[in-house]
Amino acid sequence: MFVSFLSDFGLQDDFVGTCHGVIKLISPETHIIDVTHGIPPQQILQGALVLASTLPYVPAGVHLAVVDPGVGSQRRALALRDVEGRSFVGPDNGLLVPAAERAGIAVVHEIANPDYALPAVSRTFHGRDIFAPAAAHLANGLALEELGPPLAPDALVRLDLPRPQLGQSRIVATILYVDSFGNIALNLTRDDLTQIGIAPGTQVELDLAGERVYAIAARTFADARAGDIILYEDSYGNMSIAISGGDAAQMLHARAGQPLRIGAIEP
Amino acid sequence: MFVSFLSDFGLQDDFVGTCHGVIKLISPETHIIDVTHGIPPQQILQGALVLASTLPYVPAGVHLAVVDPGVGSQRRALALRDVEGRSFVGPDNGLLVPAAERAGIAVVHEIANPDYALPAVSRTFHGRDIFAPAAAHLANGLALEELGPPLAPDALVRLDLPRPQLGQSRIVATILYVDSFGNIALNLTRDDLTQIGIAPGTQVELDLAGERVYAIAARTFADARAGDIILYEDSYGNMSIAISGGDAAQMLHARAGQPLRIGAIEP
Amino acid sequence: MFVSFLSDFGLQDDFVGTCHGVIKLISPETHIIDVTHGIPPQQILQGALVLASTLPYVPAGVHLAVVDPGVGSQRRALALRDVEGRSFVGPDNGLLVPAAERAGIAVVHEIANPDYALPAVSRTFHGRDIFAPAAAHLANGLALEELGPPLAPDALVRLDLPRPQLGQSRIVATILYVDSFGNIALNLTRDDLTQIGIAPGTQVELDLAGERVYAIAARTFADARAGDIILYEDSYGNMSIAISGGDAAQMLHARAGQPLRIGAIEP
Repeated sequence: MFVSFLSDFGLQDDFVGTCHGVIKLISPETHIIDVTHGIPPQQILQGALVLASTLPYVPAGVHLAVVDPGVGSQRRALALRDVEGRSFVGPDNGLLVPAAERAGIAVVHEIANPDYALPAVSRTFHGRDIFAPAAAHLANGLALEELGPPLAPDALVRLDLPRPQLGQSRIVATILYVDSFGNIALNLTRDDLTQIGIAPGTQVELDLAGERVYAIAARTFADARAGDIILYEDSYGNMSIAISGGDAAQMLHARAGQPLRIGAIEP
Repeated sequence: MFVSFLSDFGLQDDFVGTCHGVIKLISPETHIIDVTHGIPPQQILQGALVLASTLPYVPAGVHLAVVDPGVGSQRRALALRDVEGRSFVGPDNGLLVPAAERAGIAVVHEIANPDYALPAVSRTFHGRDIFAPAAAHLANGLALEELGPPLAPDALVRLDLPRPQLGQSRIVATILYVDSFGNIALNLTRDDLTQIGIAPGTQVELDLAGERVYAIAARTFADARAGDIILYEDSYGNMSIAISGGDAAQMLHARAGQPLRIGAIEP
Repeated sequence: MFVSFLSDFGLQDDFVGTCHGVIKLISPETHIIDVTHGIPPQQILQGALVLASTLPYVPAGVHLAVVDPGVGSQRRALALRDVEGRSFVGPDNGLLVPAAERAGIAVVHEIANPDYALPAVSRTFHGRDIFAPAAAHLANGLALEELGPPLAPDALVRLDLPRPQLGQSRIVATILYVDSFGNIALNLTRDDLTQIGIAPGTQVELDLAGERVYAIAARTFADARAGDIILYEDSYGNMSIAISGGDAAQMLHARAGQPLRIGAIEP
């Protein structure tokens, strides 16, 4: 059985290693796939989007995700199952929902049964004490309903997924996240661009917090010269902004959540 | 069989990957659990404390730890076994002792038999050439005594573990380490605080190198407002200092080894 | 079967995790060894040297390497086999050649058969869409020739490996790479130094871009005092420069590719 694992724990401390240890204590034969632990601290939206977009590339199994600013408060712990049989474990803050809704949520249970948590539960590290044990028990074949009472899917906390605003020849998009190379992912697809007449090869104007730059709608980095700002379809199908050979996010002072205006330029 | 692995190698270079390769060359079926490789370079005390505090969360097996500023000098290489049957492999600089003494040290052998090292041993990378091979051979079932001559447990190098000084209404604690979120772990338990009358909810004064700030003894981050400095019990049972939504170590210029005074404030 | 994996993807994003997922989707029983993902972005030469120098420490199997600045252009995708039966998968930019030539290249095929790529191939992430699937299919036992047409080994793109220039009492070496501790690896062996009369214990002068410093040819860090610059044989047999207790690359402003002059000092 596979347990995939995504978090904002980073790899400098022992948080990820300790969760691996706990999973292996409970389920020694389980194989763990670390999707990423580099979600910026407490960025639930970015965690949710990365969890959803990477899902098709990860074997079905138990999908453990922990980005949990509310640890120690009253937020619930969740175990979901989608209609294809994948299980999801994590906090009830919206993190799991976009991934589980790709196929459709079938069942939701609160994780509340202390039999499937560590004997001592800390106030600050539920990843280790509650979520990793629940994921490991599910990997061992535990029925979801053993973990706690059922919940209605529409009782779950959900994130506000920003939608792009499409005008006549302009779009207002939102920055979803920035990767470690400085590439800026937008809530925008190639179809959105096509709708307002922006085709590959077209020049566009970007406006980010009043800073205006020109960019070229390109198919790939190889189409651009060093230093060009490009608007391209990233490997998950989102439109993204990059600088060939540079760090676009640094240059444009881009941060997740900011609005970005894209305008076609008259030929 | 499990080999757990902790080091100060970081993950940027190939040091960890090469050790994994060596373990798998010798013991292909062994499963490796990376506890952390983010111990700050050559910080033996922090390595020893993290090794000991994470041990209960890691399956018993061979516990490989390498924080080794003395590589290439005369420091010995060690293989220990504790009374519960866990094995420990690493340098004789104190790194292994707090973890092995949790249950109690049963046997110690020097690693000296070249049959269980790589054919060529470098002067600077004993993790790859001596320690990883020894751990892999133990995982294969090799008897500890095959690695080299026995040593008396009291002949081992030991670290000076700082003890807190408890006064009437003040404590002088020592900073054990700082994690990547800027949380500051102290050599202090909740019992120590209770002894001098500091209960959850109490305000305290912290004095670090003459810089004085107020903090609140809290149960969890969720009890504090953004910006509050809190004194809380971390997930390993140490009292720690954090700023809700911030980086306490950066704000207080905290470094491992520094003394920190904590005083109750009269109501 | 083992798949080893080296890249410049870093560990902050989900790139490595997604490739792991794809390999496990295709070949669930394969064990993946991450050699390193910390090759600096697009540094093909450093990637090639690390791949070659770590190869003896990694179990034979499929060796996947992705440092791929030409993704999306016309550069070919390759699968090689060496005369000892190891397979190599990666881009045709020189990355695989030094490792595959350690034993000798036996066969080369272009990866061109869409049956062994993901159904949708992006323009920017061939690691996930082409290379990881090809490696996984080879790990499953697929014959190399199923991936695409054969190529002549001398049709491969090759890197210019810098050679040291040895004079009477001076050497001009090239900086191969800098590790995360600031150690500077040179294209130089101990034999090269011996040829111009530099023995362990000798003082030498280093000249890097006009900045001149003294260093001592040492066997190990333990031979030097804190602050000494040392010239030592690193764990892969290259001569390297380090500062005992410091960061040599930072102090000397060293970058991969720079020439460095080493001169013996008259006694």
